[in-house]
Amino acid sequence: MAVKRGPYDSDLQRQRRSQILLNTRELLESEGIEGISMARIAKMSSVSTKTLYNIFVNREGLLLQAAANRLDELVGSASIQIATPGIPRLLAITELAMLPFRDNPEFMKTVVAIVVAANENTPGAGERVGRVQMLAYDALVVARENDELKSGVDLQELSLIIAANQWGVALMWQQNMISLEQLIRQSNLNHVITLIPFCTDGRKQWLEERMDTFQHAITPVSKQPIRLSS
Amino acid sequence: MAVKRGPYDSDLQRQRRSQILLNTRELLESEGIEGISMARIAKMSSVSTKTLYNIFVNREGLLLQAAANRLDELVGSASIQIATPGIPRLLAITELAMLPFRDNPEFMKTVVAIVVAANENTPGAGERVGRVQMLAYDALVVARENDELKSGVDLQELSLIIAANQWGVALMWQQNMISLEQLIRQSNLNHVITLIPFCTDGRKQWLEERMDTFQHAITPVSKQPIRLSS
Repeated sequence: MAVKRGPYDSDLQRQRRSQILLNTRELLESEGIEGISMARIAKMSSVSTKTLYNIFVNREGLLLQAAANRLDELVGSASIQIATPGIPRLLAITELAMLPFRDNPEFMKTVVAIVVAANENTPGAGERVGRVQMLAYDALVVARENDELKSGVDLQELSLIIAANQWGVALMWQQNMISLEQLIRQSNLNHVITLIPFCTDGRKQWLEERMDTFQHAITPVSKQPIRLSS
Repeated sequence: MAVKRGPYDSDLQRQRRSQILLNTRELLESEGIEGISMARIAKMSSVSTKTLYNIFVNREGLLLQAAANRLDELVGSASIQIATPGIPRLLAITELAMLPFRDNPEFMKTVVAIVVAANENTPGAGERVGRVQMLAYDALVVARENDELKSGVDLQELSLIIAANQWGVALMWQQNMISLEQLIRQSNLNHVITLIPFCTDGRKQWLEERMDTFQHAITPVSKQPIRLSS
């Protein structure tokens, strides 16, 4: 019986797809988002533009996949793998996931704009929101096993709230309501805040200390940084 | 000396503007968002379409203002005014602000879509995000005066996070990642969760009890509702 394959699923095709994403990311780094055109990426990758459209649907799809590819790489990196599984790893991922925003804010602003303005015709936008939730959910499952969470916490709902809050902060930044520094600081802080009411004592105290760390690690945005004690 | 006026700022003009928004809201209620066209609203309001465009820039601007007008009315309503100023009032506003989502989800989906996809050319979208922050900020100022908040809390930052989280949950709903019931439940729950780490003991305990209330008041979205104790 023939194995049912998704689109573009052979080894060769997956390899080609990876190469295209790598080329896209290189061009993003050297020339910024203005440099990315479908024709140019096709030429760099020795594929026809027709093939490129077949794989990524359109330029938006290609940009979203390039960002997802970067995130996958960061999540798989050593600094995440050495973080304690569960909530510490979730926060390590959040922190590392801010790197692309710092390195290439213009590109990430476009990515956020594509995702938040997405409709059913935007390829991969739903997956992108879903990916944040999935990462949170997986970490929460481990956190529950490790008794980091109070009993009865709805992991599905908590992971949805974490994803919503992450996208909310990204949206504020994309709409120029907050600066890049605030985006990074608030993304980290927000997850810590959200998790505190759900954690058991040891982890809760660890999170409360972490709130203090963020307060001192990053330049405060106003003269009264968030503090837990006077 | 002539008094400097903003656009459309005389009594008559403000009155006319109110009437237009009232007409828009009536038509929204009777026919839904499909029924709203600039020509039709102009005719109903006995103004030229040119005047209508002068005031609201475009249909998106009119829809945003109609939603803002509804929110203003809700915030000014008796049930908010009788709520204890500070954090209880903030949560009362959050709860009441969910009414338009329940009453006219299609309209509110469009409003959220306009706001999240906004750029510098979208009239009033930034104000709309800013409005949520301002409502939160005002409530937090009172909360600080009433010793509901731990000392040193950065009200500006906390109000930004509250606004971000509200828009994040709305975005998840607009993108069909969560249901209307989840939107309402998570919007309320999210603010409670966010505030807990910043509150002094009495208010904190009140919020923790409120987490339980939301758990039981609204149909749980999964078999394991959020609970604080086993």
